[in-house]
Amino acid sequence: MAPAAFLLSESNPALIPLSLLVVFGSAKLMAEVFERLGQPGIVGQILAGILIGPHVLGWMAPNQVLTVLSDLGVMFLLFRVGLEVKSSELMKVGGTATVVATAGVVLPFFLGWGIMALWGAPGIEAIFTGAAMVATSVGITAEVLASKGLLTERASRIILGAAVIDDVLGLLVLGLVSSMARGSVNLLELFLTAAIALAFAIIVARWGSRAMVRVVPRVSPRLNVSEAEFTLALGLLFGLSLLAVYAGVAAIVGAFLAGMALSETVEQRVRDLSSGVTELLVPFFLAGLGLHLDLTVFANRGTVLLAVLILAAAIISKFIGCGLGALPLGRTDAIRVGVGMIPRGEVGMVVAQIGLGLGVIAQSVYGTIVFMSVATTLIAPPLLTWAYRGAAKRGEPAEEVIRIG
Amino acid sequence: MAPAAFLLSESNPALIPLSLLVVFGSAKLMAEVFERLGQPGIVGQILAGILIGPHVLGWMAPNQVLTVLSDLGVMFLLFRVGLEVKSSELMKVGGTATVVATAGVVLPFFLGWGIMALWGAPGIEAIFTGAAMVATSVGITAEVLASKGLLTERASRIILGAAVIDDVLGLLVLGLVSSMARGSVNLLELFLTAAIALAFAIIVARWGSRAMVRVVPRVSPRLNVSEAEFTLALGLLFGLSLLAVYAGVAAIVGAFLAGMALSETVEQRVRDLSSGVTELLVPFFLAGLGLHLDLTVFANRGTVLLAVLILAAAIISKFIGCGLGALPLGRTDAIRVGVGMIPRGEVGMVVAQIGLGLGVIAQSVYGTIVFMSVATTLIAPPLLTWAYRGAAKRGEPAEEVIRIG
Repeated sequence: MAPAAFLLSESNPALIPLSLLVVFGSAKLMAEVFERLGQPGIVGQILAGILIGPHVLGWMAPNQVLTVLSDLGVMFLLFRVGLEVKSSELMKVGGTATVVATAGVVLPFFLGWGIMALWGAPGIEAIFTGAAMVATSVGITAEVLASKGLLTERASRIILGAAVIDDVLGLLVLGLVSSMARGSVNLLELFLTAAIALAFAIIVARWGSRAMVRVVPRVSPRLNVSEAEFTLALGLLFGLSLLAVYAGVAAIVGAFLAGMALSETVEQRVRDLSSGVTELLVPFFLAGLGLHLDLTVFANRGTVLLAVLILAAAIISKFIGCGLGALPLGRTDAIRVGVGMIPRGEVGMVVAQIGLGLGVIAQSVYGTIVFMSVATTLIAPPLLTWAYRGAAKRGEPAEEVIRIG
Repeated sequence: MAPAAFLLSESNPALIPLSLLVVFGSAKLMAEVFERLGQPGIVGQILAGILIGPHVLGWMAPNQVLTVLSDLGVMFLLFRVGLEVKSSELMKVGGTATVVATAGVVLPFFLGWGIMALWGAPGIEAIFTGAAMVATSVGITAEVLASKGLLTERASRIILGAAVIDDVLGLLVLGLVSSMARGSVNLLELFLTAAIALAFAIIVARWGSRAMVRVVPRVSPRLNVSEAEFTLALGLLFGLSLLAVYAGVAAIVGAFLAGMALSETVEQRVRDLSSGVTELLVPFFLAGLGLHLDLTVFANRGTVLLAVLILAAAIISKFIGCGLGALPLGRTDAIRVGVGMIPRGEVGMVVAQIGLGLGVIAQSVYGTIVFMSVATTLIAPPLLTWAYRGAAKRGEPAEEVIRIG
């Protein structure tokens, strides 16, 4: 057996408690400050990550402990959100969600590509930047909507549905540009991959809930393990997250689908226990986004201009693309959907990192994309609060408020 | 910014969901099987780790994701246990606990040392093996007692108190043998370190609860963040865990003290949310122990004999040492305390790993110590069930059963 197994904790026994205290503590402190100022606590938590990160105070650098907690945190966040969404209601808005997702992928991709091409970037770098502007990070929007009890709004359902489809389309785009970078494009294989991912999502969304309503109430009372229903729920969560990765999409898509499949059957106890996990882990996801912001981008004036241009393009193209897709439902919903799809979060960063790994994008462009990802994420919560102000004013019942963030 | 930050998940996006599914799923499955057979579910979970581990099925090897989850799991387990323990009640048994801990350190140390010396091992290797037999892993015992609602028994309080003192003594022993291995012993420094650790534990145990009873009810209603009380509790948990590491003892000692400091003030909601975390993470701690078992030890007949000898010595010396310490309280409590202190769990493994790192113990002795650690951990739950059968039969009220495992 490799003695390396305990190395993580043995080499520095303070790493885990130190990371926990500094990141959780600063995130919650900033959340408290922001809420007192009437601002979204979620923005405070991302800013906390920037503040303690390598470029400002330098208290904390990204490390593997934080990566595990952040990945697990966003997985449970989407699971918890899924628990409040009935698949039948999501299916109702399926058509609109597809149009929203498609328009919200095409416009940012071509705008990003165009700007970089005009900027004089090599062809493949321009295409990769476009690809990094495609994928929406639904975690941030889900967090805001859940904490305000707005998940039942029609626009919220469209955003969640579109985010799932968006992930499949993002997979297609990333696969396409990655194979272009490697110099071998197999279109048949690409479309097959996307078809598998889409089939997975549709099958679970359509029949998962029906299956769980039959299985869970029969199986869980017969189990002897403690918290049988929660145990079954976690099993489904991990299983579908893994299947999602195998199907080519993000683990959080599986996590969301698992939550949705269980939304009509599990008891309040499962929601409470899941809340314990999200309360602990979500700050690591939020502050983790801020930790990755690279401020050295701003050492070069040219890159600053490019970063601002890319950021503006990322916001406008997603807002207009998705907003237009939802316009048939009226202006209010169009604005909500457009705003809700803006954050790129961790997804944009991962695409940029793959490009960096393939050697097709420069370090400065990488920094620009990370800046765009964090900035779109920071801008979304206040915009969402504004876009949904009607729903809040109408005082709609928000009994099932998920307390996260 | 180093792009390595996302590497863990990027290099293999399936690593996290795969580790989660395989470890959690197999642990819970084996727990279910064992409980149906009338055996402790906790043993099933450790065996699940052995079964899926590198030497049997080979489905899973220890990895950094599992290490983070396991470390966090045992931290929350001790925190959750601390929440059920009033410090005043622990203080009452302080004298007995000190005697129990001391006898339970001295006897295993000298017996382990003696066996290895007679076996013909080099002096420093013999001493290191003795040191690895010293520390009790309170996680396993705490799990069993908590899940059966037996934390209020007098013997249980003594075990928990002795485990904290045991950790301080273990620090002293490990520091001593490590500096012997390095060839420079500074006794003054060693005793200073132990004094700091002991002072930390005593101060928090004695005044922590009193401070929290005054602080928490005043501060938490004024906070705007969601789940304010749970947030404060997590802050204290992480803070004291970090202080414990800085004071030289294990993070879980700080976690236990944090729970105990909050035991008289927090509401049921905090216990429920913490239970969500332990339900998720404790299986990773338990199965993680099994994952580390090295069965190649048994390829050599000589090592098999040594392993059996060391195991027998580990069980008998702890049982007799701790049992004698608690004998003034009567035979029943003496047996309970003796049995409860047997498991070495992750603590023995960490000591062995340090010895391996210093180059003073052979790979075969390392394997022997890991075997002893896992075997003492497997043997404890059924012995505890037997030792506490009276308490169970008398049908004592176990209203606050912590549902873990």
